[in-house]
Amino acid sequence: MNATPPAAMPNVQRDALHFLPLGGAGEIGMNLNLYACDGAWLMVDLGITFAGDTLPGIDVVMPDPAFIEERNEDLLAIVLTHAHEDHLGAVAYLWPRLRCPVYATPFAAAVLREKLRDEGLLSEVPLTEVPLSGRLELGPFVLTFISLTHSIPEPNALLIETPYGRVMHTGDWKIDPDPLVGDPLDEAALRRAGEAGVLALVGDSTNATVEGESGSEGDVRRTLARLVAERENGIAVTLFASNVARLESVALAARDAGREPVLVGRSLQRYVRAARACGYLDDIRLLNEDEGAPLHGSQALYLCTGCQGEPRAAMSRIAGDSHPRVSLGEGDTVIFSSKIIPGNERTIGNLHNRLLRRGIEVITETDADVHVSGHPCRGELRQMYQWIRPQIAVPVHGEARHMQAHGALARALQVPEPVFVENGDLLRLAPGEASIVGRAPAGRLALDGGQIVATDHVSISARRKLMHNGAIFVSVIVDRSGRTLVSPIVSGRGVLDADDQQGEREAIAADVADAVDSLPRAQARNESAIEEAARRAIRRAVRNGYGKRPVIDVQIARVPG
Amino acid sequence: MNATPPAAMPNVQRDALHFLPLGGAGEIGMNLNLYACDGAWLMVDLGITFAGDTLPGIDVVMPDPAFIEERNEDLLAIVLTHAHEDHLGAVAYLWPRLRCPVYATPFAAAVLREKLRDEGLLSEVPLTEVPLSGRLELGPFVLTFISLTHSIPEPNALLIETPYGRVMHTGDWKIDPDPLVGDPLDEAALRRAGEAGVLALVGDSTNATVEGESGSEGDVRRTLARLVAERENGIAVTLFASNVARLESVALAARDAGREPVLVGRSLQRYVRAARACGYLDDIRLLNEDEGAPLHGSQALYLCTGCQGEPRAAMSRIAGDSHPRVSLGEGDTVIFSSKIIPGNERTIGNLHNRLLRRGIEVITETDADVHVSGHPCRGELRQMYQWIRPQIAVPVHGEARHMQAHGALARALQVPEPVFVENGDLLRLAPGEASIVGRAPAGRLALDGGQIVATDHVSISARRKLMHNGAIFVSVIVDRSGRTLVSPIVSGRGVLDADDQQGEREAIAADVADAVDSLPRAQARNESAIEEAARRAIRRAVRNGYGKRPVIDVQIARVPG
Repeated sequence: MNATPPAAMPNVQRDALHFLPLGGAGEIGMNLNLYACDGAWLMVDLGITFAGDTLPGIDVVMPDPAFIEERNEDLLAIVLTHAHEDHLGAVAYLWPRLRCPVYATPFAAAVLREKLRDEGLLSEVPLTEVPLSGRLELGPFVLTFISLTHSIPEPNALLIETPYGRVMHTGDWKIDPDPLVGDPLDEAALRRAGEAGVLALVGDSTNATVEGESGSEGDVRRTLARLVAERENGIAVTLFASNVARLESVALAARDAGREPVLVGRSLQRYVRAARACGYLDDIRLLNEDEGAPLHGSQALYLCTGCQGEPRAAMSRIAGDSHPRVSLGEGDTVIFSSKIIPGNERTIGNLHNRLLRRGIEVITETDADVHVSGHPCRGELRQMYQWIRPQIAVPVHGEARHMQAHGALARALQVPEPVFVENGDLLRLAPGEASIVGRAPAGRLALDGGQIVATDHVSISARRKLMHNGAIFVSVIVDRSGRTLVSPIVSGRGVLDADDQQGEREAIAADVADAVDSLPRAQARNESAIEEAARRAIRRAVRNGYGKRPVIDVQIARVPG
Repeated sequence: MNATPPAAMPNVQRDALHFLPLGGAGEIGMNLNLYACDGAWLMVDLGITFAGDTLPGIDVVMPDPAFIEERNEDLLAIVLTHAHEDHLGAVAYLWPRLRCPVYATPFAAAVLREKLRDEGLLSEVPLTEVPLSGRLELGPFVLTFISLTHSIPEPNALLIETPYGRVMHTGDWKIDPDPLVGDPLDEAALRRAGEAGVLALVGDSTNATVEGESGSEGDVRRTLARLVAERENGIAVTLFASNVARLESVALAARDAGREPVLVGRSLQRYVRAARACGYLDDIRLLNEDEGAPLHGSQALYLCTGCQGEPRAAMSRIAGDSHPRVSLGEGDTVIFSSKIIPGNERTIGNLHNRLLRRGIEVITETDADVHVSGHPCRGELRQMYQWIRPQIAVPVHGEARHMQAHGALARALQVPEPVFVENGDLLRLAPGEASIVGRAPAGRLALDGGQIVATDHVSISARRKLMHNGAIFVSVIVDRSGRTLVSPIVSGRGVLDADDQQGEREAIAADVADAVDSLPRAQARNESAIEEAARRAIRRAVRNGYGKRPVIDVQIARVPG
């Protein structure tokens, strides 16, 4: 079940501090970071990513934890920095292989509990809540949670103190002077860490190519309030369900304009539940779909899932006028209070076009300040490096171009050792100069139906072939001597399957019968010779007639006479 | 074979001028424009588009010409504005259904001839070359070709004169003061047309949301020359093969820097052949891959296909270090002298990352002025409307958002009648106010292997299902009374197909045998009862065990005893 072929496991030196990413280095998504010290391991984050079009039939992809699974008796804990899917989404799938304690601040714990419940693991996983700014001793590691700001409540940096030096593991962050929900960024704690001396900063590279600052949720709140106040017809706002501050901003914009905010879509309900459990959104009234159904468009403000154009989510169904409860049309407005996740440009563009064709106004971040990124731009990175002044900079949470830009910036800021790692690189941070001292197997696993399989599993590659070329199935029923007893049965799936192609299927069946029945007597006793004859006949017919190379599946039944 | 269900054909009034787009309105791609006048039809352009991920196993998609095919005795000609795939790519596939004369200027004719040769149609299609600025009388239509500028040689607007007024059909265009290759924009002819009076402008909306001007090929030439002159190691430039001016710019940058320009990739060879046949690139020396193979990186400049990240094209293979002739590495440079076609962001981003990880510098249009668009920005649209001053503006060649922006701009420029059309809208331009007077069936066809099929063909939807869920195939061999003669044979494709799942397949075979053999005697004589029993047994096993809903194909052979 490993995505990676067995590889020589690296020899991890005991009296040292190592960093080993198994996910999230060279990509944005599926973060899995490991630290090793004096023979003990610590995992920071365990997230998923989405497969896109690369793996047919697969949505969810996660890092292959095989390397740490094999030494899970030395794994002290999984510590989660925050509640985004790419940081905690794989816990519910992979924890059974790791079986260690899990630590998180209250909001991430609440979100994780919902997922564990879905997978029937809630009572099994030892999940401990850590208070904001809390401290945690795990073997040789002493962790301090430092509140940062991001696009979700309770994003934490981890200050990891070890006998070999301190690591500042930033998690996802930005500097938001007005984050609206949750604690402000704890500048004092960052400064203190910097003054105490930090060996390595392991940090977010997402926006390292972008100059300036990412902007504040406070500004978005003001823009949304203005846009809603200016409009009289129906309004829907689509956003990431986990952005609780944004959700509150939309709800307040509705209240100020005398509208009722209505949650449309299940994942919004789920995050609102988690937020309320942690004391967020306390005074905010939010209707569910049933409660909102009697309202006219001008009385409501719909908060909708589906900002990435997901076909079954609320926004897509509203665009297609097929939502059971919410209907928008000519003169109404949809605000996309969200970014476009790379890869979704075409899908989201199509969604915009579907709305525009129906006379619905579409407002995106290119039209007004209705979204800010949750990740640090170069101005914020500079500020962080001024606070922390690490000896080593390890860019993670980025594709190659983001990590290279982050590393170059760190070098320009006089960080003595910017280091580049890819998933699987075993980086010794101390003692001595930072250097990559080995490779661990690093791969990807996919959730396929209910099973977790390697991304190169035969079923996935078979589906890729089926998707392009379809399949021809044939049953050949022969007697003891290998002669056809009845006409072979041919069917096509994805090729040659139209009703009006019955004649062509029968012609192929006749070709197969001819091929089998004209095999020399000795070969006709041999299953694989029959199969090969049938296969050849089919391949010839299909390639000449259709220019396709379908999967061919020949089943031979030998019936005793 | 029609993509569209039979619909009531619109009644086209004889004594009138109509416009009817069957492709290219509401999308960028597969242009097919029709004009009708006094019972005669004229087709302008017949292009393809690319399917993206929406149609598994399909690359090429084209407009369904059913409407005009049914009246092709009234179709006077296909007139091509220029040589881009989205304007002429479908001629080689659909001409056999239309069988009318084709007209094009020399470069488009040369490109088309290559395609017709591939399809064995070269001697059949009556293709007539029209000289630049030429004139053509076709029934009630008198056409004048007007040279514009674009990103390919010989882009033409068509001034279509009819008894009911003049139409300016712009095709694709921009205002390039320094187009480098081919004629300059014929401003005088545009002004003359405007002064004579134009009823309707039917035109390019691609960049109608973008302020300013699209920029000049001359500026790109200077930037490329500078970037090449500054570098000493290997350099590759990837670009659209049809952009002959750009290709010349790269070749000249190479010459000035003492490098040999080497063409890498087949489609570059093809367009260079067409360009040379028309007298372009006359003094430009270009090596082919074989000739370039002995050169060191610093002696050559590689012009490469694959700027959109196409997996089998030159650039992708160079990034993967698997190109047989060209090898780049640490310290070398790749220039993407091209835009990102929407939908390709992720693929191209991955290509950039693969190059960066190998230490190769990547320069794109965000880093330097290495690309300009071939379509008019708002400044250029304003200029065109000042020249033409039409009564009616019909935005085409754009998605809904582009066409709406184009229409709003035309309205702001005092065009009395901006009109919105979608594919299939029959627009009466004259007499009377412009109005949509009917709907023609408008759909899409797909090239599937060697066949042209409707995009909702059963094979395509079957492949979509196979791609997500795979297939289970079972042969059930029964005797006259419907009892299994031998054990059913079960195989899986895309599900349950791993070697270590043999036991599970056998368990399903046993379930199927049980289900069939326990059918009541009367039902066991009935093929569909046997099939349903087998199907149910399989569905139960797979859904419980794997969470998948595969395609299930049951073949029943009844062997006479």
